[in-house]
Amino acid sequence: MGAPPGYRPSAWVHLLHQLPRADFQLRPVPSAFAPHEREYQQALLLVAALAGLGLGLSLIFIAVYLIRFCCCRPPEPPGAKSPPPGGGCVTWNCIAALLVGCAGIGIGFYGNSETSDGVSQLSSALLHANHTLTAIDHLVLEMVERLDEAVRTELTTLEEVLTQRMELVAAARGARRQAETVAQQLQGLAFWRGVPLSPVQVAEDVSFVEEYRWLAYVLLLLLELLVCLFTLLGLARQSKWLVIVMTVMSLLVLVLSWGSMGLEAATAVGLSDFCSSPDSYILNLTQEETGLGSDILNYYFLCNQAVSNPFQQRLTLSQRALANIHSQLQGLEREAVPQFPSAQKPVLSLEETLNVTEGSFHQLVALLHCRGLHKDYGAALRGLCEDTLEGLLFLLLFSLLSAGALATILCSLPRAWALFPPRNPSASCSGSHQSEPFLQSRLEPGLRFCSFPGCRRRPH
Amino acid sequence: MGAPPGYRPSAWVHLLHQLPRADFQLRPVPSAFAPHEREYQQALLLVAALAGLGLGLSLIFIAVYLIRFCCCRPPEPPGAKSPPPGGGCVTWNCIAALLVGCAGIGIGFYGNSETSDGVSQLSSALLHANHTLTAIDHLVLEMVERLDEAVRTELTTLEEVLTQRMELVAAARGARRQAETVAQQLQGLAFWRGVPLSPVQVAEDVSFVEEYRWLAYVLLLLLELLVCLFTLLGLARQSKWLVIVMTVMSLLVLVLSWGSMGLEAATAVGLSDFCSSPDSYILNLTQEETGLGSDILNYYFLCNQAVSNPFQQRLTLSQRALANIHSQLQGLEREAVPQFPSAQKPVLSLEETLNVTEGSFHQLVALLHCRGLHKDYGAALRGLCEDTLEGLLFLLLFSLLSAGALATILCSLPRAWALFPPRNPSASCSGSHQSEPFLQSRLEPGLRFCSFPGCRRRPH
Repeated sequence: MGAPPGYRPSAWVHLLHQLPRADFQLRPVPSAFAPHEREYQQALLLVAALAGLGLGLSLIFIAVYLIRFCCCRPPEPPGAKSPPPGGGCVTWNCIAALLVGCAGIGIGFYGNSETSDGVSQLSSALLHANHTLTAIDHLVLEMVERLDEAVRTELTTLEEVLTQRMELVAAARGARRQAETVAQQLQGLAFWRGVPLSPVQVAEDVSFVEEYRWLAYVLLLLLELLVCLFTLLGLARQSKWLVIVMTVMSLLVLVLSWGSMGLEAATAVGLSDFCSSPDSYILNLTQEETGLGSDILNYYFLCNQAVSNPFQQRLTLSQRALANIHSQLQGLEREAVPQFPSAQKPVLSLEETLNVTEGSFHQLVALLHCRGLHKDYGAALRGLCEDTLEGLLFLLLFSLLSAGALATILCSLPRAWALFPPRNPSASCSGSHQSEPFLQSRLEPGLRFCSFPGCRRRPH
Repeated sequence: MGAPPGYRPSAWVHLLHQLPRADFQLRPVPSAFAPHEREYQQALLLVAALAGLGLGLSLIFIAVYLIRFCCCRPPEPPGAKSPPPGGGCVTWNCIAALLVGCAGIGIGFYGNSETSDGVSQLSSALLHANHTLTAIDHLVLEMVERLDEAVRTELTTLEEVLTQRMELVAAARGARRQAETVAQQLQGLAFWRGVPLSPVQVAEDVSFVEEYRWLAYVLLLLLELLVCLFTLLGLARQSKWLVIVMTVMSLLVLVLSWGSMGLEAATAVGLSDFCSSPDSYILNLTQEETGLGSDILNYYFLCNQAVSNPFQQRLTLSQRALANIHSQLQGLEREAVPQFPSAQKPVLSLEETLNVTEGSFHQLVALLHCRGLHKDYGAALRGLCEDTLEGLLFLLLFSLLSAGALATILCSLPRAWALFPPRNPSASCSGSHQSEPFLQSRLEPGLRFCSFPGCRRRPH
């Protein structure tokens, strides 16, 4: 009944968390989140390095494939009439790879937006928590000031008015003592005052980093989209220079894709370790950063029946003191006001102050309860461990698809280019231009038609 | 300080809300959300009918275009060697339309997922609100039972033990009266008890509808994806029957796209009206459904400084009564326990009960405060008015793109099909088969190559 249903690690978190980790000497590393430990850092770097290995292997494969294609083809008989088998298949390969690349780009945009959603949920939870914490501080300050003001003015006036009846003065002094007790107890409740950690600053830092991460991915996705579209255009117009430029750009984007894949994989693995049991890490970190007692932090981060409210005693004492002030004021109103009519005004004013303070006290009790802050904590964790992790996995899928598609395009483009009709035969790869005269009339007229001016005419 | 930053209508809400609305007689209708008014329903139906108009116009356009193409072409000279101009362009038109359609499908998947996210945010906020409301009920019940139990057992025992000293019995009876006051006041705080509206039921209903909506869109998107892919396959393999089937399927998906567009447009317009000022509508609806007082509903739905806590007085009275019980128990402990050692056990047990009740009281104050429930209300509104509306607009964009792409495909496919090499000339459209012998050798060999068995061989 205490805490609402909170954060539960997802299946992806469990899956990633169970993958084995190793340091640079390939010794197994425990998968508990420990970003300051050397072995754990090495394990994450090793995950990122796997993408580097993938890049190297795919570059070697592409190089071997293209060298075999360019240099090891058997010479064709000069009078051969048939186009090389698979000539059109190369173009269709390219188009299929481009479609896969475009699907990957769509997935990438989705993943980028999910990641961004998760981080903005984290930021907004931090801002919300900050709102609660500063509201507690302000409310305590306001209540203490109101009580101090009442003690300084109304209660002093009352004591001066009632100076002839000592037992009434004693009652007024009792109320003053209780008001001072309340003020003192309340000041102990503003637990966030003077804490060096600002959730707003953390939220701003996170949003700042996320903004650039988001932008970088959008630029990468747009770059890949442009490469796909211009490659298609180059194939359609059979423009050699465009295909050459796009081959170079594909190589660049391939490197960027593998690089981003390494970053994503390492981040996803690290995030899964964090998300599998975030409480203890966050508790220790917050204790280090804020210097707050573990009873307060446990109360807010766990917020279950087992953890008692660390402010319970102060709240109960304040509540009792407020009730005592009330009964003393009621006594004064009954006893003193009929004798000393000038006491009526301060007594009524004090009762008004008391009512307002009791209203604020209920608000303070609500703010201090773990429910609100724990809900923000849960929302931040869900943002980070569900949306952001899911987004990262989609980005990983994008990187994989685009690496595959780009490798296929890099293998296919030079072959497609070799099949284009020659404009400058010396520029083409050896062995391929022999069959091009046939290709000029037989291969891909559909592709070339689009460059004809007459292509926009509709048949009548 | 009272409420955290809540829901603000987005720019899309303002934009859609400002569009003019009209009923079936084309008289302007105010854009305030009033789903039970006849004129407003007519305005939304008219928005949906615009999509029907769009469907009709696009079908007429396609029919006119195809009739012109099939029946009004000038006969070509029988010995013409050149393929009809624009022959390949038709294929490239188709491919471009398919790409646009695929982009639309990607946008549709994103929009469907956003809409679903928004609705699940609404459901989870409703479940969370339900959790708070039932927690209040349970807590009140538990506190009242605990106090009743204390009154029945410990206080009765105490009165029996102290029966010789009347002033002590009077103190115990005073405590009993105060405990009964607390129990009575607390019972008035369980405001949700007996209310016929269940947020869980609403959440389940919403989730149920959303599940089928989501599934229907996924099926529509997959159907369109399949149509796109099989159309591409039909073009690549130059399979006439596949192209004919896909033409029919495209027509079906075109109708579905325009239909979904009408639904989306009407829902988006209605949602924007709701979202531009949801408070008053929701307040009235909840008041009708629950029969709760407007002070309570205003407190939770507005939750600002201007609305005072309707439970303030009950809470203050309970708090004072608890403090009085405490001071009476302290008096009894001081006065009675030294004389009557058997009174110690019930007094200590009562103090323990009082401590637990004060802890529960603080929890109750926190649960009753508007902050928690208002945050759920804000989250539900943000889910519905930001994520769901955004998702609907993306779905609208998907429907527009797919309607455009499918209309282009429907115009192009019969032309592309007419250019295929004839297998059964009588089945082809008049006038087109004359040029097909040339096309067989000159048009789209690249497309045909993929059906050659040799296409998978790599050149050596």
